[in-house]
Amino acid sequence: MNTLYEINEKALKLQSEGKKIIRLNLGDPDLDTPREIIEAAYEAMKRGKTKYSSSYGERSLREKLAEIHGVSADNVVITPGSKWGVFATMYLLLKGGGNVIIPTPYWTAYDLIAKSLGAQTKLLRTELDSNWRIDLDKLEELIDSETRMIILNNPNNPTSKVIDQDVLDGIVQIANEKGVTILSDEVYGTISFVKTKSILDYGSNHILSNGFSKTFTMTGWRIGYIIANKKLIDNITKLNQITINNVPVFIQEAALKALELQKQIAARIKEEYQERAKMASEILSKTALEFSKPEAPFYVFPKHRGLDSERFTLDLLDKGVAVAPGTAFGDYREHFRISLTAPREEIKTGLDKICEALK
Amino acid sequence: MNTLYEINEKALKLQSEGKKIIRLNLGDPDLDTPREIIEAAYEAMKRGKTKYSSSYGERSLREKLAEIHGVSADNVVITPGSKWGVFATMYLLLKGGGNVIIPTPYWTAYDLIAKSLGAQTKLLRTELDSNWRIDLDKLEELIDSETRMIILNNPNNPTSKVIDQDVLDGIVQIANEKGVTILSDEVYGTISFVKTKSILDYGSNHILSNGFSKTFTMTGWRIGYIIANKKLIDNITKLNQITINNVPVFIQEAALKALELQKQIAARIKEEYQERAKMASEILSKTALEFSKPEAPFYVFPKHRGLDSERFTLDLLDKGVAVAPGTAFGDYREHFRISLTAPREEIKTGLDKICEALK
Repeated sequence: MNTLYEINEKALKLQSEGKKIIRLNLGDPDLDTPREIIEAAYEAMKRGKTKYSSSYGERSLREKLAEIHGVSADNVVITPGSKWGVFATMYLLLKGGGNVIIPTPYWTAYDLIAKSLGAQTKLLRTELDSNWRIDLDKLEELIDSETRMIILNNPNNPTSKVIDQDVLDGIVQIANEKGVTILSDEVYGTISFVKTKSILDYGSNHILSNGFSKTFTMTGWRIGYIIANKKLIDNITKLNQITINNVPVFIQEAALKALELQKQIAARIKEEYQERAKMASEILSKTALEFSKPEAPFYVFPKHRGLDSERFTLDLLDKGVAVAPGTAFGDYREHFRISLTAPREEIKTGLDKICEALK
Repeated sequence: MNTLYEINEKALKLQSEGKKIIRLNLGDPDLDTPREIIEAAYEAMKRGKTKYSSSYGERSLREKLAEIHGVSADNVVITPGSKWGVFATMYLLLKGGGNVIIPTPYWTAYDLIAKSLGAQTKLLRTELDSNWRIDLDKLEELIDSETRMIILNNPNNPTSKVIDQDVLDGIVQIANEKGVTILSDEVYGTISFVKTKSILDYGSNHILSNGFSKTFTMTGWRIGYIIANKKLIDNITKLNQITINNVPVFIQEAALKALELQKQIAARIKEEYQERAKMASEILSKTALEFSKPEAPFYVFPKHRGLDSERFTLDLLDKGVAVAPGTAFGDYREHFRISLTAPREEIKTGLDKICEALK
């Protein structure tokens, strides 16, 4: 199996052996974490913020997030990365079976988590040809008495597509009618190029997963959060108590500093990605690749008719460029995912090598 | 329910309301993380060690730990706290049922994790009166065809007792004969006051859980590790990939620095706890409390005949001292746990208040 993670471990290994690899395979920005955030962490460490703390997260950070999202601090729990928030939510909602509906292409982790938990996944295919639109009739058909949740990724990884508002309205309406909970992973939302609604705009039935990784270039810091009803927040906290205990407090203080500087930092980051997306679209438009223009960071998910993306990805890695095969995001063998998370010059070189490899 | 975590959340709440609480309820040292460790983290952040990284952990840290424990780096995975290592191991070994044998008194998390995973726990009671000795015949009787693992905590929390070598020999022999895996949590081992064998001294059938929290006063940093056969290490890594992804690299670099300075740091920390244990033993010897003298940091687990430890703990919290009720460690209603993780003067005041409350 040639998954996202295996490609990454292989790319890391090649790098550690001294090989130059242009890594366009992960959503891990080349940009540095802003210096103010690093300094806030250091100051907190020096103030002794190196102890165990509440498994809910720090009150100050929860309050700030509550203010931003228009909820109460009791509806917020801090997690070591948004992935942990997704795992914890699925662990709790899928306990003892049931199924989960996931539109594809999807972020690999949703499916792997469901499988690890022994839950059934029902995939709802979307296509480039219909601009990745989720078919509401198909969604309704997929829901049965065992359906516990629907996972949305909005904006989507790997397509960088934002769900159109009428579609999102329809999804929520169906979910509410059927009594199914939506987990909406909006980790690319704050720096999206186009506006969309958040799941929180539809009331308190559903669950928001979000993080600091993408908005603030803090991927390796491992900090995110879940916003949900108090009962689920309490249950995630109980799971935190027997697993990760708490996110280091000095990291939470760094995240609080990030939120205080959100306007300036996020605007700067978004602008850079918008430029990269434009550049990539221009280069790729000159090829036989089909793709939808990114509406958010960081990805392009082009299609090449007849492509065997796993073989293509491995061959490309040997040529010094790491991308992710389409099969890592569902049944998308003709697609591959390019992450625009390298300096522009590197992206350009990488894209040129991709174009050459496809000739 | 008046568990370890609920007492702690209540103590935190009282503190946040401005009340002075002497916190002897958690194994969270008052000592600061050594400055060299903080500086190592800061330097790493500035060098851009803020990205996603391998879910195995950093190669350099794994190699250093392998060298210390006399294994291969392939047998080491880095976890966000030793608790995550315990959870991950139990999640993988108890998948689909089975039971786990846990000597009591035990660290609460083992039991809560097993329950959360839907596994059955078989408790093996030990008593102060027999110096917390594990009865090998009883252990053998408890093992059945569904037994997947035995969890040892050596040295033990809450008793601070080290397993006698002949008993450990016997446990391993029984486990090997029956084909049951031992998970040995040795998080207090490096700063133990008396010597004992590690589970790794018995070959590669079994699993070591360890962490940096206690040895280096790094509780809130959330970093630990598992040493096991390569297959389990690979499976924990796969679980890391869909949950926590990786421990922040700057934290791993801080941990590597800690290991480089281990001799001086650990010796200093051990000496301080030995002094505290001596002082506590002296004060408590003058009371009607029965207890075994600590053979390792940080705890004393005294018994008071007829005590209702949950009521006692709550009353004591109102008087400004937080300890943990014996019932948080199994069926030990007449016991309570004192953590010697405050400055000596505070411990003395706390112990005096405890003695007074018991009059």
